[in-house]
Amino acid sequence: MPKPVLDFWFDFASTYSFLSAMRIAPLAEAAGVEVRWKPFLLGPIFASQGMKDSPFNLFPAKGQHMIRDVKRLADEIGVGFQWPDVFPQSSVLPARVALVGFKESWGHDFSRAVFLAEYAEKRVISDTVVISDILTELKVPVDVTFAAAQSDAIKGELRDLTAEAQKRGFFGAPTFTTSDGELFWGNDRLEQALRWAKK
Amino acid sequence: MPKPVLDFWFDFASTYSFLSAMRIAPLAEAAGVEVRWKPFLLGPIFASQGMKDSPFNLFPAKGQHMIRDVKRLADEIGVGFQWPDVFPQSSVLPARVALVGFKESWGHDFSRAVFLAEYAEKRVISDTVVISDILTELKVPVDVTFAAAQSDAIKGELRDLTAEAQKRGFFGAPTFTTSDGELFWGNDRLEQALRWAKK
Repeated sequence: MPKPVLDFWFDFASTYSFLSAMRIAPLAEAAGVEVRWKPFLLGPIFASQGMKDSPFNLFPAKGQHMIRDVKRLADEIGVGFQWPDVFPQSSVLPARVALVGFKESWGHDFSRAVFLAEYAEKRVISDTVVISDILTELKVPVDVTFAAAQSDAIKGELRDLTAEAQKRGFFGAPTFTTSDGELFWGNDRLEQALRWAKK
Repeated sequence: MPKPVLDFWFDFASTYSFLSAMRIAPLAEAAGVEVRWKPFLLGPIFASQGMKDSPFNLFPAKGQHMIRDVKRLADEIGVGFQWPDVFPQSSVLPARVALVGFKESWGHDFSRAVFLAEYAEKRVISDTVVISDILTELKVPVDVTFAAAQSDAIKGELRDLTAEAQKRGFFGAPTFTTSDGELFWGNDRLEQALRWAKK
């Protein structure tokens, strides 16, 4: 019997996507669920809901709590966290590269490394140097990967994922969806979404 | 040694406050933590952040998910949930009555009954008939309690709690605060807040 599937929709700009990305692999393994990683862009979704910036910037009290909350949660799972100098960061480049990686074997490792660069190491993930450092560390050829990431096929894939997220009523990240159409929003719902996927 | 204390800040209008109100007593008992129930009004806080309505109404995609999310969580804890015809409801009357009840012995039972009336029974909690039905059920004298709830002292207490919530940077409910000044937002943080209070 094939494993039940959970779709993990994330934006590299999102702090709570970072936490889920660091947690999801062992939890999914233990649950016997296959996870499909689906990067998308929150920017156009927020814009369509009338927000020209992250809600964490538009509502400063909420933003201030979020930073403290993510720190407490990162401490609990033993992951480093430092508030980056730029928030939110443009995630187009790493999202496209990740889509190349998911077709090969290094997409998950790459994604975790990007999140750590951004939220544990204060690096800027829209910087091609940062992304090429990560690829090099993973022994992935940089030039051919960057070329693939800029192909029309990959650009279209990210656009399509973002359009699908918007069409399905997403409003934040991470979002988890199951094959029966259930939608769970937020890192706090990861365990519940895995349980649902197994039903 | 006195028990550690956790403050549970809630608004009767808030769906996730409902879930925490139904969960908190046994969890606090098991943790050995004393919980102080602190009703406040979200309306002035949202207004000060530029929102003239609940964020769940201002951002419909978020609101639609919230209803489904609360239903799933209520199912998990075995509590009924039906979406009310009016949302959000004015919570001034039950908040004032609850403040009377917390000085006596029936405040917690009253608060849970109000939340159930609103979110399991589709009743309107700004209706004096609904509130007096609940008091009668609890064998609390209605007239004297309504008089106390309309006293300057109780009105001032609710105003002060709301002002304190605003001053401390609250932006939603429930919010949990510990004696060392830590702030946790949301029903999802109840367990973590109890752990923190015990540190």
